[in-house]
Order: sequence, then structure tokens, then C-alpha cells
Amino acid sequence: MQLEKYAIDEHNHQLLKNHQRNFEHVAADVKELDTVISKLKAFNIAIPSWALGTGGTRFGRFSGGGEPRSLEEKLEDVGVIHALNRSSNSISLHIPWDIPDNAQAIKALATQLGLHFDAVNSNTFQDQASQKHSYKFGSLHHVDKEVRQQAIQHNIEVIKYGVELGSKALSVWLSDGSNFPGQLNFRGAFQNTLESLQEIYGTLPNDWKVWVEYKPYEPNFYSTTIGDWGQSYLLASKLGPKASTLVDLGHHLNGTNIEQIVSILLMEGKLAGFHFNDSKYGDDDLTVGSINPYQLFLIFNELVEGMDARNMNHATDIGWMIDASHNVKDPIEDLLQSVQAIKIAYAQALLVDKKALQAAQLNNDVALAQEILQAAYRTDVRPLIAQASLLMGGALDPIKAYRKLNVRDSLIKERGVNTVATGL
Amino acid sequence: MQLEKYAIDEHNHQLLKNHQRNFEHVAADVKELDTVISKLKAFNIAIPSWALGTGGTRFGRFSGGGEPRSLEEKLEDVGVIHALNRSSNSISLHIPWDIPDNAQAIKALATQLGLHFDAVNSNTFQDQASQKHSYKFGSLHHVDKEVRQQAIQHNIEVIKYGVELGSKALSVWLSDGSNFPGQLNFRGAFQNTLESLQEIYGTLPNDWKVWVEYKPYEPNFYSTTIGDWGQSYLLASKLGPKASTLVDLGHHLNGTNIEQIVSILLMEGKLAGFHFNDSKYGDDDLTVGSINPYQLFLIFNELVEGMDARNMNHATDIGWMIDASHNVKDPIEDLLQSVQAIKIAYAQALLVDKKALQAAQLNNDVALAQEILQAAYRTDVRPLIAQASLLMGGALDPIKAYRKLNVRDSLIKERGVNTVATGL
Amino acid sequence: MQLEKYAIDEHNHQLLKNHQRNFEHVAADVKELDTVISKLKAFNIAIPSWALGTGGTRFGRFSGGGEPRSLEEKLEDVGVIHALNRSSNSISLHIPWDIPDNAQAIKALATQLGLHFDAVNSNTFQDQASQKHSYKFGSLHHVDKEVRQQAIQHNIEVIKYGVELGSKALSVWLSDGSNFPGQLNFRGAFQNTLESLQEIYGTLPNDWKVWVEYKPYEPNFYSTTIGDWGQSYLLASKLGPKASTLVDLGHHLNGTNIEQIVSILLMEGKLAGFHFNDSKYGDDDLTVGSINPYQLFLIFNELVEGMDARNMNHATDIGWMIDASHNVKDPIEDLLQSVQAIKIAYAQALLVDKKALQAAQLNNDVALAQEILQAAYRTDVRPLIAQASLLMGGALDPIKAYRKLNVRDSLIKERGVNTVATGL
Amino acid sequence: MQLEKYAIDEHNHQLLKNHQRNFEHVAADVKELDTVISKLKAFNIAIPSWALGTGGTRFGRFSGGGEPRSLEEKLEDVGVIHALNRSSNSISLHIPWDIPDNAQAIKALATQLGLHFDAVNSNTFQDQASQKHSYKFGSLHHVDKEVRQQAIQHNIEVIKYGVELGSKALSVWLSDGSNFPGQLNFRGAFQNTLESLQEIYGTLPNDWKVWVEYKPYEPNFYSTTIGDWGQSYLLASKLGPKASTLVDLGHHLNGTNIEQIVSILLMEGKLAGFHFNDSKYGDDDLTVGSINPYQLFLIFNELVEGMDARNMNHATDIGWMIDASHNVKDPIEDLLQSVQAIKIAYAQALLVDKKALQAAQLNNDVALAQEILQAAYRTDVRPLIAQASLLMGGALDPIKAYRKLNVRDSLIKERGVNTVATGL
Repeated sequence: MQLEKYAIDEHNHQLLKNHQRNFEHVAADVKELDTVISKLKAFNIAIPSWALGTGGTRFGRFSGGGEPRSLEEKLEDVGVIHALNRSSNSISLHIPWDIPDNAQAIKALATQLGLHFDAVNSNTFQDQASQKHSYKFGSLHHVDKEVRQQAIQHNIEVIKYGVELGSKALSVWLSDGSNFPGQLNFRGAFQNTLESLQEIYGTLPNDWKVWVEYKPYEPNFYSTTIGDWGQSYLLASKLGPKASTLVDLGHHLNGTNIEQIVSILLMEGKLAGFHFNDSKYGDDDLTVGSINPYQLFLIFNELVEGMDARNMNHATDIGWMIDASHNVKDPIEDLLQSVQAIKIAYAQALLVDKKALQAAQLNNDVALAQEILQAAYRTDVRPLIAQASLLMGGALDPIKAYRKLNVRDSLIKERGVNTVATGL
Repeated sequence: MQLEKYAIDEHNHQLLKNHQRNFEHVAADVKELDTVISKLKAFNIAIPSWALGTGGTRFGRFSGGGEPRSLEEKLEDVGVIHALNRSSNSISLHIPWDIPDNAQAIKALATQLGLHFDAVNSNTFQDQASQKHSYKFGSLHHVDKEVRQQAIQHNIEVIKYGVELGSKALSVWLSDGSNFPGQLNFRGAFQNTLESLQEIYGTLPNDWKVWVEYKPYEPNFYSTTIGDWGQSYLLASKLGPKASTLVDLGHHLNGTNIEQIVSILLMEGKLAGFHFNDSKYGDDDLTVGSINPYQLFLIFNELVEGMDARNMNHATDIGWMIDASHNVKDPIEDLLQSVQAIKIAYAQALLVDKKALQAAQLNNDVALAQEILQAAYRTDVRPLIAQASLLMGGALDPIKAYRKLNVRDSLIKERGVNTVATGL
Repeated sequence: MQLEKYAIDEHNHQLLKNHQRNFEHVAADVKELDTVISKLKAFNIAIPSWALGTGGTRFGRFSGGGEPRSLEEKLEDVGVIHALNRSSNSISLHIPWDIPDNAQAIKALATQLGLHFDAVNSNTFQDQASQKHSYKFGSLHHVDKEVRQQAIQHNIEVIKYGVELGSKALSVWLSDGSNFPGQLNFRGAFQNTLESLQEIYGTLPNDWKVWVEYKPYEPNFYSTTIGDWGQSYLLASKLGPKASTLVDLGHHLNGTNIEQIVSILLMEGKLAGFHFNDSKYGDDDLTVGSINPYQLFLIFNELVEGMDARNMNHATDIGWMIDASHNVKDPIEDLLQSVQAIKIAYAQALLVDKKALQAAQLNNDVALAQEILQAAYRTDVRPLIAQASLLMGGALDPIKAYRKLNVRDSLIKERGVNTVATGL
Repeated sequence: MQLEKYAIDEHNHQLLKNHQRNFEHVAADVKELDTVISKLKAFNIAIPSWALGTGGTRFGRFSGGGEPRSLEEKLEDVGVIHALNRSSNSISLHIPWDIPDNAQAIKALATQLGLHFDAVNSNTFQDQASQKHSYKFGSLHHVDKEVRQQAIQHNIEVIKYGVELGSKALSVWLSDGSNFPGQLNFRGAFQNTLESLQEIYGTLPNDWKVWVEYKPYEPNFYSTTIGDWGQSYLLASKLGPKASTLVDLGHHLNGTNIEQIVSILLMEGKLAGFHFNDSKYGDDDLTVGSINPYQLFLIFNELVEGMDARNMNHATDIGWMIDASHNVKDPIEDLLQSVQAIKIAYAQALLVDKKALQAAQLNNDVALAQEILQAAYRTDVRPLIAQASLLMGGALDPIKAYRKLNVRDSLIKERGVNTVATGL
């Protein structure tokens, strides 16, 4: 299924007058309006292929209807999202869930939908029917060299698929860890992981990167071998310039100051990018911005400041991706809400009066620094997002348009009610 | 020091045109504008006497200048705050820090400043030079009956001071607890606390309430005898209808769903009120709304919904108070920021489309429910707050006015640079 | 498969001399040795039927071999455990996973194995193929009366199965909650839950109890409708004397003082019992005593003290059950380790010098109180456990015996390698 | 005051027979008994000068009697501790609290007591009356170069005092951080800290080290500039081989796997040493081993394994120090309990069957690995500690001896009841 542009335009038409009024109001106070709108137009967040189906927990999974049954249908879903918000022009695949039978045909479909392929993800946290060795006790960190080799070869294969599709990065999340004290020799596990990654690193094409994700716990509940940013950074440093650290917002202990980590990784040239989501307890994988939108803004404030300080291109020099699990919402609606929340945080960060903030910091004028940040945060920037979307041919209000156009009904008609997409 | 109304008016005059434009813009979309503005005008948050000086930590305290040296000067500071925001018409005293030598004179000064006296707070977490028994091992829960009696008598004395000043509630926060396993018999500690509170309860005037605060840890680091809302509720139930539970936002373990607790206490008729602050780790006592403003909004969303369901008066049927520690900001600025953040959250909650939300809930339309909440939250309600303040004779932008009017300089001139107010 | 007593005796024989030496050494310092041994002999912990297979996480499940394929085989596994440790004389069933086709035959098999049936558990956190309404948005708290009725009828049916088997309690864990702010009206959810429970309560046989479990999060990640002990207590109070609160050790926020909650629930006569496990982060469901054995000891210290104060029978007046998930261990070994850890904590608690502890508490002699507790905790009580097991006909070292007797190999031979027991 | 050896011997005499019996029992099962006893004899933990007085919280401080009023008296208190446990042969000073007027005399006193001087600690988290610039907004990270210089010079001065006394390391804990979003530029703060440390590093004598401590929060409640091990490691790497990371057990977010961090720092050659304490919530600074003794054992298990792998000397190649706050106990008793708990954990770690553990790990035999660890942990090693103490001339039961000898009474007689030692 693909959305027709005229349908979106028609829906926009009904909202346009009101939008115009709101946009003009907020725009009047934005200093560099054109720059802000340009940056918002250029900003895209990749959609993970596994987030297009209904997610579950260890207690169960309640599927929705019309879930994509194939890679092609996943691309179509991302096409729908991108048509609506003009900010989701790529998809991140997960191997083996998304092995393309015909890479050329898949690339052609993507191009037709205005999409390209973001980082490819390997999976060594589950056993596949065909595989020889089990990952029950880990993969790249495994005590058994043969298991490590199997996992290394899998990653190399994932790169190969990525190359065919035009991806430029391998994203590695390892669930390797332990459930009980004594289970692992931490040092051995770290060294094995390093050596395995080095072997994978050696096969990276010249223009490729490898992104090393970290996570403190789950699915292992005593230790994770790449458990925090420090361990990921250590590995990335030893690997070399193509390696850097991927930050998943949900992969932190309660209370972690994520924005400070982001700032430091940026400073060290080792920030690969993000897996966006939100959480209240652990890796809850909730819709971005649904629990603590101010934290998201603070992260973007560090990003804008830090990237500008290094003359980086906001749109392309960092990997932006959503990684959430949509257990009780229509996955497409959830993704639309997530992208919207990210763009709102980004727009608010662009509105921060940097000069004034810097001056307040140099004066230790803490109350003023907070006023400056919150002045940007409290601004209703939704009309700026809507304007950028409109200029790119997207919907003024993507969720409303999605509902108005009965997209889910069409998908159910096309694919059926009892569908289960690959994923968690 | 007292602020002259014409000075505030003059400052407003310069911001008025811009305010008018902003107010009209947001007001156009507010359904029951008059009701919202009326409620904002009626809304007041009490200022605690101990928050007018610079706070400290166990590692040190860095005092500021011009801190109030007496109860009279504390009243004057609250007078300044109230003159600026018209939302802080009461002060909450802390005995023995604020024992009034001459209650009549103090009441007269308060009346002149447009203030009255909120709940009075007892202190049994510190030893006073004059007292016979130490509270090193607790007060109302103490194993020694004589220590308990001393603490009971102190609370009764606090009520007496409160009666003289026109307060209507005793607020009890006990630091009683233990630092090590084995130190306490939990059951004995609970029973002693209950009996002590019953004795205090028996002396409450007819129109008084007692508010029982809870806190999981600090200054005791293994257990607190009134450690969570369940324990406070249990005590309040056993005490009787005059007793209820006070919620300090910082007094929860990481991850606690505070808004759910608020909803349940309201439902059971046992929600006394709030000590507002914000925190990232523990009882950090930071400026309200400085860390997680969305959580504050969610709490107010429960309050508005729950109070309306019980036909309660928003302004008066719940105790609203700030309880923060201003370690690196001018205390008055910090309090102005806190009150502003509370009013913003309240205004946003008033804007929630309750009917639509209820319908979404009954349909399990989770994405829509989120859209409805966030539509209110993302609205820039600052002009509504400013308008309510303006109509009450306050400042459009209280912090800006405070700075423009050089209030702190005047206070320092009057009181000196090296001043240390009583408090933590 | 059933273990022959002579095989266990034979294995014991090899360890006996060493055991004797160790037992005599520790026994010499135990004041009321006979009482302690009697209590240890009488102590049993129920085994949950769903813990006999390999557990998983949302990321995957790595099954083991020889898992029980039927209720009969689950009983046999518990029989093996009980034969080895003589402390697991009951099984807790989970409906619909364990619906007995022929209750009489199942009861006969249990009796033959020396087992009986502990509390029965309902399941409304998953959808069954046959059911009309989905529990995607909850069960007893659901906004739709028909869904609530379906869940109520399921619980009533579970009671019926329990009656047939001789159970005396219904254990209710509700996953009902919400993933996002706005999804639920907390008050409505609580009231619906209460009314649903009241209807179930009304059908309880005279000699039955209902145990109400609480949990802060997972599988819902914003709120759980019975989220903490306070909410469970509130429901249990409103329900009546047959209702009380079940404590699962993993169902608390980080830092919760569980032993204090246990003490208070005991004091109020509302402690139903336990689901034992251990955890480092959330509801990790790890082997009991594998992460923080001192906390387990502190809980038992409260239990022994509190039950003695109410003249309760340690063995029978509280529901003792394991609830863990064995993702990387042989489930039977994990259960043997868990039971052993519980008995160790219990034995240590029995060794606490209560009189001396009480005296230290009354003197606020904190250092001495700690010395007294830790003197008991640091004692190597394993020989006491072994002695009690020996006297009851069990193994001196259950895990060693289990391995020596090649039980798992026999089970795999009997049942096959690729077996998946019902459970999570 | 100094303890006479004959008094300790006399007290030992009464316990000797029972000790002999216990020692022989446990010794029979220890494989390399002589080695274990030798290592226990050689093991010493430094006592911080500031822990000899009663600590407090921001809510108050309840002093005890007989607290040391001078550096000399602090040395004497450590002398008492060391005489009793023969495991506390050094003191760690804190400048400016402990500036020695006469270094030679102080050294002579120390030598007489069998003590030497461990790492010296700088203090830039408080303002001293004499200092020109305030540390209200930080020290080595400060935006103002003059403040940084003042703090740098202070650290250099601390090294100078240390050199005079024979110390070999500077221990730096910075409270530098921020309370509110926007207050700091994280990158600037990090760079300033690095440059300041580089200047200090440049002045280190050849045989000196600098230990960089980290802490996530408190006294700042939004960010700390050296907030976690990764940030400390980054600084230590950039500084050079004399710099490494100091681990304070209380300086971690809830749930942090500290033993894994220890293992990795050891592997990288960047583990400076420890500040031992215990905690349930944050930096609670409780007696070592009073909350989670199993975690302490797991840390020592990593230490023994990792140090052996690098052929390090357990006794001298790592800095061992207590850092706790004794709010409700006699400080000397608390320190005796802490040292005892550390030695117990160390002895248990020495008893772990490393070969068997390694084999279990290589087989992914998780249950067995746990059995091996817990077999060591569950062993009652107190007689081994007592034996080592006895052989060194210390007390079999230091706390009992301390009480029997009425040390506190003597100290109160000598120094008075109303004494307040320097410290927090």
C-alpha cells in the first residue's frame, strides 16, 4: 500500500488556515527562521524494520492486524510513514529477520518510496533453526572459539547484505552477559569480545562504520559484557576510527545523566548515534517522548551545541534511529508519535539562545541558564515542525492524516487480521 | 523591604504589547477561558520559611547575601514573592526555627503583606540546645517513653503557636528510622509512632488537620519508620478523619509512579497536600519543574481530574507548598521559578480535553489518549499565567521584574552580605 | 521417573563421616538444637509447576532437555526434588497451563510422591486460543464489563480446579496496568479491580484464602494497577479476612526495604506469603539467594520474630513458594539451590539471639545489634540443613546427589531432548 | 591513649580455647592454609582521619563523646584500632582538616604506634575561611581560571604535606558538578578538569600516584563532572601512567555491577584502589558489609583472581581504605566492624576453588559455578581472621576486646564528652 500525495494535500487543506495562524505566531519570535526550517526539513530518523509489528514481553504478545508479512511490506509501511512526515527516509534492517531474497528488487522498491537503507543489525541473541551452535551462553564473548567464529561469520554476512543494499554501517548489539555471579570471567569475556569485534572490523569496507551498543542488563540479569558507555568506548578505542558508540536511550541504569555521556562521546569523536525510545523503569521501549520529553530536549541541546562545535552536519553525521516496542498501540501510529517527539525536541534545541546561555554559564548564573533553556522548551514548536513537513510535501498532522485516510483498515484488508511480523 | 506596586506596573508596561499578542493567540484555543483564568487567579502555593536562605548539603553550605535574619524578614521575602507573582499568599513556619516572639505583631505584618499562615511544621530531627533528651535515635518512634513524650509535647507546642497565628494544620515529617539492620524492631517503632501521633491528634483543635509525611530514606539509610505512602496511609487511617497523607515529590524511590499514588489517596479522601520540588536521584530538593516537568503535569492532571470528581475546590481543599533547597541560586529566584513551573503544570492540566480523554480511555485508544495529554502539555501556557498574574496586580514576568528591580541588591544593602538564614 | 531411597542413602553414606564432624561442630553452639532441627524438618517450600521448564525473556528462550511434557511429569519432577531435599512437599499449579484432566488420578499420583497441592494460580495476562475477549488491555481492571466478567469466571473456575485437588488458596497476580500516561483512569482501574475481586471473593469456599500479589512494572511499563504493597493491602482490607497480600521478592523498586514491609504486613495480619527469587535490577527471577543472601536472611529474621510474636506456626501459617525463571540452569538444580538458600536463611534466623537483640535495641546499641545479627548470619549452618534432610530421608547434599544419580540424563532419555514445558 | 599488649593478651586468653576448636575445624578444610593465613596477616586497610569522629547528614549531626581533638589524637585512635586488629597500619589524611604543624613529631608518633601515612586527600568541596575564591561553583572544573589555579595550588600543597609524612599518593575527589540543566557546559567542564589535573600531575614526585575518584551525584544533583568510572578512566588515560581510578563502593547508581568495573580497571592497569563502605540507596557511607556482604565478597573474588593474573601483591599493589560515616555508632567500633567485614570477604575469596571455578566457566556450568562461589562464601571464616590477628599480636575478637577494655570511657575521661572531630 502507498499513500497518494493528493490525499495528504487534501487533508492538509482543511488544517491549513489554522496552521498558518499558529506558524506565523511562533515564527515571529524565531531569530533564524530559515535556518531552523531548513534543518528541520533535512532531518530524518531511520525506522527499524522490527518495529512495524506489535511487540511483546516475556509474558505474552498481543498482535494487531495488518502487520507486514515480508520485507517488501515493511518497506511499504516505512513508505507510509515517510509520506506522512517526510522525516523517515530510511529503514534499518535486522538480519536474519530481513534477509533480502533479491537485493536489487528491494533497492528498487526503496528508491521508488524515497527510502534508503540505514545501518544493518546483526542478531546473535537468538538461535536460528539452521545454526550449528547455540547462543544460550553468548556469542562474540563465548568461551568456545567455535561459537565465536559462528557469530563473527554471521556479522560478516550481515555486512555483505548491507553492502548490497547500500548501507554504510553495521550496528552490533550483544546480549552477551551472565545471569549469576561466577558464571563468567569478566576479563575473558571482554577479551573474547574484543578479538571477535577486531575480526569483524577487519572486514569492514572502507566507507563503513561499526556501531557498538551497550546495555546494563536484560536479557542477562547479573552482567552484560558491554554494559555501559565506558566499556563500549574502551572497545571502540581499541578497534579504531571506524568504531564508535551507539546510545540507546533505554540502556541505562535509573538516574544516569545521558546527556552528559552524549556530550563526552561527541567530544571524543566516538558518538555513533542513537536508538531512540523512552522509559520509566528499564529498557521499556516506549514511544519516544512519552515519559520524559524534557530529557530528550536536554540530549538534543547537547547534540546541537556539540555538533556545531565540531562543525558537524546535524542531518547526516550522526545515526538517528528509533528502537521501540509497540505493545499496545498501532505500530505506525507509535512511530509517527516518536518521530514527532524527536523533531519537537530538536526544534526546541535549535531555539535555545546559545550566546545568552554561554554567557550565563560563564557567570555561573544558574537561574538564568535555566530560564534560557526552558524558554526554548516551553515554546510551542509544533507549527515549525508542521511547516517543514508541509514544505516537503508531508502532512501537517501525520497521525490525524493517518487516521483520516484509514490506513490501518486498508492494511488489514490487504494483509489480514491475524498477522505477526518478525521481531520481538 | 517591600515592593511598590507602581514599580511592577511600570515593568509590566514594557512587556504588555508582546504579552497581549501572545495571550490572544493562545486564548483563542482555550475552550473555557474565563474559568481557566479564574482558577489560575485563585491558585496559591505556600512558601516555607526555611527556603528563603541558601541551603546546603552534608558537604558544606555556600551562603548568599541578604538572607533574612528574622521571622519578620522572612515574611518580607514572601511578601516580595507574592507581590511579583500573586500566587504565594501564605508562609509555612518551622518550629523552633521560627518561634514568633509576638504573634500579634507577626500576624499584623503578614496581613499587611497580604499573607496568612499555612501549616506549621514540627522539628524532631535535630537537637536543640535546651532540650533534655536527644533525637539521635528518633523521636515519636523512640524506644524510650520519655523521649517520645518530649517529642509529643513539642508537637503540641507547635500546634499552640499555629493556633495563635491562624494556621489550620500541623505538618509532621519524622526522620525516625534506622541506619543498620537490627537497629530497630520495625513493629515496635510503628506502634510507638502510632501511639505518639494519637496523643498529638487528641489535642488538635476541631478545625485542624494533621498531615503525615513519608520518605523512604535520608537522614536514615536503612529504614524510615514512615517510609512510604502505604505506611503513612495506615497511620492516617488509624488516627481518624483529621489525619491524612502529605506527598513530598522527592520522597520516593526511583521509578515510583507518583501520580498513581496521588490518584489513590484522593480517591480514599486521604490526600493532605504536597511539598513540591524536583529531583533526579533522591531527595534532591531542586527547583520544581527543573528536571521532569512532564511528571509534574501528569500529577496535576490526576489532581484536576480527581478533585473535580469529588467536587473539591482546587485552590483550598489541598495543601500546596514548596519544599526545596536552593544551594546555587538566589532563593527568591528559585522560589519564583518553582511557583511558575507549578502554575504552568496546573494550567496545562486545565487545558486537557477531559471528555475526549475519557472517551479514548473507554476505547483503549492509547495513542489518542497520549495525543490528548500532550496536546495540552505542548501548549505554551505562559501567557495564561502572565494574564492571571496581571489581573491580580502581579508581574507579567516575575523573575525579570525581580532582577530589573534589583531586589537582591536592596536586600544585601539592608541586611548585609554575610547572612545565614535558619534552615538546612 | 522417581528416585529410589536406597540410591540417596548410598550417596549420603559417602558424605556421612564428614557431615557428622561438621554437624557436631556447629551443633555444639546452638542453644535449642532440637527445636531448630524440628523446625527445619517441618519447613517446606512449594514448587511452582511453571518453573520446571527452562524460562525465557522477550528476546528468546533456550530450552533444555527432558522438560516435563505433562502435569504428571511436572509432579514427578517435584517428586524428585522432594525426595532429595525433603522440603518441597507441594506444587503450585497454574491454570490454564496445568488443567488436570483427571483430578482423582493426579491427586493419587501426588499422594504417592508425598506431595499435595499448594495455592492455585489464575492467568489473565495471556490470551488463550479459546477465549472470547482479549486481555491486551487488562482483565479484572478492564474498562469493558464483559472482559472483566470473563476474567472473573476464569478465577472462579481456577478455584473449582483447586477444590478438586485439595488446594486452599487462590493466588492472583494481575499484569493489568498501562504503558503510557493517559491510557488509564487510575481510580476507575482500581475500582473495577476491587469489584471484580469482590465477586471472586464471594465464591471462595469457607476454608479458602485469596492472595493478592503486587508488582510495580512489567509487562506494563508506566503503571500497574496493583503496583505496591499499599495498593494490595488496601484491596485486601476492603475484601475481608480471607484476603491478604502476597510478597514476591522481585516485585519491588530498587532500594525497597522489603523486610520492613514484611514486618508491617505481619503486624496487620495481612501477610499471605511469598514468591521467593532474587534479583539485581527488576523482576529478574534469579535463583533465591544468588544475588543478595543477606537480604533474604533479614526477611527471615522479621518472619521468625513476627510469627513468634503472633504465635504462628512457621511451617504452615504462611505460604512459602518459589517463583523464579531458570534461563541458563537445569530447572531442577536451580530449584534445589533455591530451596537450599531459603533453608539456610531460615536456619540463620533461628540462630539469632533474640533476647540479646531485643536488649541491644532497647539500649540503642546499634553496633551490638549488628554483631548479634551477623553472628547468626556468618555461622555456617549448612550442616544443620543437611542433618534435618538426613533425618527426613533426604540427601545430605541434594545437588551433588542429583548429579551423581544422573537424573537429568534419565529424564532426557525418557522425554527427549527437544521438550518445552508450559510456562514463560 | 594507647592499648597495652598484655591487656589484649589477657582478653584473648579467655577466648582461646574456643577459638582453637573453631580454627582447627575450619582449617582442616582449607587447602593452602599457610598461604591463606600469611595473606591475611599481611593485609591492612587504611583508616581515614575524618572517620574517627561522629558523622552527620544535612539534617544534623549528633556527636559522641571522646572524639579526637587533634591530629595526634586521631593517630592514637588509629593506634587503638591497629593494636586490636593488626590490620590498620596506616592513616589517610585530609587537608586542610589535618595539616600537621610538626611533620617530624607526627611521623615519630606514627612510627611509635606502628603506623604510616596512606594517600593524602585534598578538599575543594568546602570553602576555608582563609581562601580568596569560593568553590560554590566547583574547583578544578571552574569556568574561572583563577579559581582553578587556587584549587590546583591547594592540591600541590597537599602533595607537599604528603611528601613530608611519607605518603605516596594524592587522592582527588571532586564534588564539581551542577545542580540544574544548563548550568554547565559539560565539555568545557571536562576539559578544564583535565587541564587542572595535568598541572597537578606535573608536580607529582617520581614515586607518587594520583588517584581519581568518581561519583554520580551529591553534593551536586544534576551532574558530576567526574561522574562514573568511564570518565575517571578517560582522565587517567590522558594524564599518564601515574594516574588511575579510585573506586568508592558508594559512588554508583543503584544496580551497578561494581565487581565487573573492578575487573575491567584491573585488566587495564588502571585500578588505584578502594574507598570501602556499604549502602542501600546512595552514598550512604554505612559500615562495610552491613547491607550486602555478598557483593563485597564478589568484589574480592574479582580482586584476588585479577591480581593473581597480573602477579600483583595483594597487600600493597592496591590502595585499601575505608570511607564511611558513623552517625549512630561509636566510630572506632564501626571501623573495627568494617575492617572485620573486609577481611572476612577477603578470606572467603581466598577460599574459592579457582581451578574448579575456571573449569565450570569453560563448561558454562552455571549452577556449579554458583555452588563453588557460595561454598567459599558460606564457610565461617571468622576463626581464620582471628588466627591471623592472634599471630600478629592482635585481639581474637576486636570489638569485644574494645568493650571489655572500656576504651571509649577512657577516651571520654581524657578528652571530654562534648568533642567534635573535624570531618563531615
